[in-house]
Amino acid sequence: MIMYLSESSELMSREETIVFKAAEVPIEWEEHYVGNEIDPRTQSFLTWESLESVRKNKVGLKGPMATPIGKGHRSLNLTLRKELNLYANVRPCYSLPGYKTRYDDVDLITIRENTEGEYSGLEHQVVRGVVESLKIITRQASLRVAEYAFHYAKSHGRDRVSAIHKANIMQKTDGLFLKCCREVAEKYPEIKYEEVVIDNCCMMLVKNPALFDVLVMPNLYGDIISDLCAGLIGGLGLTPSCNIGEGGIALAEAVHGSAPDIAGKNLANPTALMLSAVTMLRHLELHDKADQIQNAILNTIAEGKYRTADLGGSSSTTDFTKAIIDHL
Amino acid sequence: MIMYLSESSELMSREETIVFKAAEVPIEWEEHYVGNEIDPRTQSFLTWESLESVRKNKVGLKGPMATPIGKGHRSLNLTLRKELNLYANVRPCYSLPGYKTRYDDVDLITIRENTEGEYSGLEHQVVRGVVESLKIITRQASLRVAEYAFHYAKSHGRDRVSAIHKANIMQKTDGLFLKCCREVAEKYPEIKYEEVVIDNCCMMLVKNPALFDVLVMPNLYGDIISDLCAGLIGGLGLTPSCNIGEGGIALAEAVHGSAPDIAGKNLANPTALMLSAVTMLRHLELHDKADQIQNAILNTIAEGKYRTADLGGSSSTTDFTKAIIDHL
Ligand SMILES: CC(C)[C@H](C(=O)O)[C@@H](O)C(=O)O
Ligand SMILES: CC(C)[C@H](C(=O)O)[C@@H](O)C(=O)O
Repeated sequence: MIMYLSESSELMSREETIVFKAAEVPIEWEEHYVGNEIDPRTQSFLTWESLESVRKNKVGLKGPMATPIGKGHRSLNLTLRKELNLYANVRPCYSLPGYKTRYDDVDLITIRENTEGEYSGLEHQVVRGVVESLKIITRQASLRVAEYAFHYAKSHGRDRVSAIHKANIMQKTDGLFLKCCREVAEKYPEIKYEEVVIDNCCMMLVKNPALFDVLVMPNLYGDIISDLCAGLIGGLGLTPSCNIGEGGIALAEAVHGSAPDIAGKNLANPTALMLSAVTMLRHLELHDKADQIQNAILNTIAEGKYRTADLGGSSSTTDFTKAIIDHL
Repeated sequence: MIMYLSESSELMSREETIVFKAAEVPIEWEEHYVGNEIDPRTQSFLTWESLESVRKNKVGLKGPMATPIGKGHRSLNLTLRKELNLYANVRPCYSLPGYKTRYDDVDLITIRENTEGEYSGLEHQVVRGVVESLKIITRQASLRVAEYAFHYAKSHGRDRVSAIHKANIMQKTDGLFLKCCREVAEKYPEIKYEEVVIDNCCMMLVKNPALFDVLVMPNLYGDIISDLCAGLIGGLGLTPSCNIGEGGIALAEAVHGSAPDIAGKNLANPTALMLSAVTMLRHLELHDKADQIQNAILNTIAEGKYRTADLGGSSSTTDFTKAIIDHL
């Protein structure tokens, strides 16, 4: 059973489930929807039941959503990350064969600390006109995400981990993060380890993304760098995301929102969500199915006959999905 | 008189002063060097006299420096920014004609709040393994930099200002920053105003930098985005930077360090510092001289005969500088 979190009850008509069915992926979905009102147990529109479902199933897929904006409730993303202790957010980003951007050599993995840093939610007004927010870095969360990054590098045959930071300015917080990365690096002598200041990292990424391999970093830098990397290969419509939590939880997600302007018009590109679903299959060790679906998606895009509007094509979501199924 | 801050007494042999002399720029330099020991009045290697010199002359140029690293003193950059209240850091970034990168349509101005935000220097350990740092946003500094950005846009014939933020997460701090930008935007109805989340901004910048014009933002985002933009056109060796302070102070600087690996080898690219010196001339309203020198630099690079190693050429700093003088 897999938790599927969505905005509305349209699961069985969703592209990723259709493709999963066509590929005969041996899983069953358990559907959950974002609530209409704030659930007091989560302080957000996220229902308590959906949280329980991920805790029980250990695996989930979160559809694209337009986060409800307003006061008095917590953001859906933040609630999921904090309640489920989703400590690492993994965003692979690689050039799609046949889809041309300014870069053709991108193959990056950003691994983002996902629970603290600038996302503490601790902010207050000191006096009128002076506000402050707290960035929190802990040894525990830093070690955990660093450990995940090195383990990921090793188990995926990657040979380098770069820790991204601004410890020249935030010596104590980012300094602690680096200290933890160094400690973990020592246990992985076969993986090269380097430290790169965030501003310099962004400059190097746009000049020559091939300089990097696996990047690990505190929360906000991960948010920024993963979007930058997505931009290199064509945007958030193409990049998967998977959140790793305590006790082996994996919650895959589309990072992009539900694009209200094109919602319901059969125009959206389902690639990011499908590739995210693929990372979920890998987490379940269903590697054959994962390969099969991933190749079908990449081959469809490479062939170029069926592409959605965001990739310069004119296919509907349905036709693009059909083409993927044909490639299975 | 212009304050010139440098690491060692080499002013008269420095490329920017040689070019200034050749162009008969009517200014006189007043030299200051980074001290050998910490000046108790500045708590850094920056001498009190050099600060006094900028205060008096109102204009200064800071040469590339390898910031001394170590405990017990403040960073040179931060000391300058805080002591002189250098509230806005302006970094223009445009594609250099004839110098090919992946982008040929870059023409961006990043304007960075330069005194607060994540650079507060306020950090401490809460308990063992838990550290925090404070990001401070004030109404005063936000209004001031927003005002500068809109004024800059208007006086430079630019029609759009984008405020970059992460107010969806830091609602109070970045929220206050946005509120101030909105207030100022109302006074400039002829300038388009938009708000862009930092992660999305980075994605858009690498996909299509022509989407932006003038960007204004809190300190850390400015640090990150200005380096990203520099990367689009070839790197920090090519982008000028000028700090604007209270009472009409302008302190131009090379953002890059002194590149100890090539220092003294006559290999460095002096473009960033020369273009920074040009922004200083504009501040002094010496526009003819500024145009003359800027054109000579750009034409030399465009011609392509004399380029330093970082731009794929093999010219020495001296030959590149001579070529610029020939183009004057
Ligand atoms: C929507 C927003 C809260 C979120 C974040 O800032 O983490 C998003 O940008 C992401 O990268 O997942
Ligand atoms: C050297 C460093 C302290 C500085 C900063 O972070 O502001 C630099 O990156 C810059 O952009 O001027």
